[in-house]
Amino acid sequence: MAKKGKFKAWQTISRKVLYKHPAHSYFLDQIYLPDGRKHEYVHAKLIPGVLIVALNSKKEVCLISQYRYVHKRKLLELPGGGVETKQGVLFHAKKELLEETGLVAKKWSKLGLCHSMPSHTNSLIHIYLAEGTKRQGPGSDMFIEGISRMRFVPLKKAVSMVQNGKITHATTVVGILLAALKMRAV
Amino acid sequence: MAKKGKFKAWQTISRKVLYKHPAHSYFLDQIYLPDGRKHEYVHAKLIPGVLIVALNSKKEVCLISQYRYVHKRKLLELPGGGVETKQGVLFHAKKELLEETGLVAKKWSKLGLCHSMPSHTNSLIHIYLAEGTKRQGPGSDMFIEGISRMRFVPLKKAVSMVQNGKITHATTVVGILLAALKMRAV
Repeated sequence: MAKKGKFKAWQTISRKVLYKHPAHSYFLDQIYLPDGRKHEYVHAKLIPGVLIVALNSKKEVCLISQYRYVHKRKLLELPGGGVETKQGVLFHAKKELLEETGLVAKKWSKLGLCHSMPSHTNSLIHIYLAEGTKRQGPGSDMFIEGISRMRFVPLKKAVSMVQNGKITHATTVVGILLAALKMRAV
Repeated sequence: MAKKGKFKAWQTISRKVLYKHPAHSYFLDQIYLPDGRKHEYVHAKLIPGVLIVALNSKKEVCLISQYRYVHKRKLLELPGGGVETKQGVLFHAKKELLEETGLVAKKWSKLGLCHSMPSHTNSLIHIYLAEGTKRQGPGSDMFIEGISRMRFVPLKKAVSMVQNGKITHATTVVGILLAALKMRAV
């Protein structure tokens, strides 16, 4: 039922916590739609994320095969993770790259920023370009995070893998295409 | 505590429904991690989505300004929405484009497929290219969906808007960059 009195579009009327966690909490809000109807809106508050386009000296990009519980299969992705402490975004980009692949890089620069799913979450992903990578050892978190394989592929090939549907993880696609544009690999 | 007996990595031990809805349900699962520890995993089951790169005769792409409740501001996005009925993905792509922009198109083709947030949802977005668009009237759902403006920008300019951070919606970025590659606008 549309409200007859005064209301403000998108105003929060009430909030119920569905799940509370430091890294990802879920809420059920009751809000006003622009026509005054009340509407239930479920959304998640997530910590920011980092995603790394890690290139070796041949300008090949590091891809990992990561098991995704929701999909019951592995997806080809860029390494990445959550900004879990106050030590900054770049700190966590370096940490995630090392933990998931065992790689360190000579040069770090910001490649872009994106919102994964603004209809359902506040997720903000910081995308970094890491150049001149070298392997320090095995990634310490590969096993626990379900990462079974890492490999380097030429940026041009990664772009083709996006175009033919072999890479479908949205922010990974964004990272690869932004890097390919920057490195003139398209 | 790691389990000492037999377990299967990523196996679902139990499931609790946090929120039930035909288009988006939320679940709290207890699962086994690869090392046997039990872990709480919250995830959403969403209906598939469509996203449309709609081009006019000058190869300019249609962008909308859509209010996002979670972000408390508008984001620049491609038109899109959920596949709510069994009438097929293309049917809903045409329906969403018309409802959100008032546009119809002469030629439809599949541009790509992506997973918005495979760590948290099963979301699958079908990206279409709609060419030769013509406005039939105002978009009937613009008001209720918080869409305040639609405009056409050259594909090359849209790519620049991605690169300089004016467009951040992940699947919108994927759609624009895939279209720019296909139409040789990069």
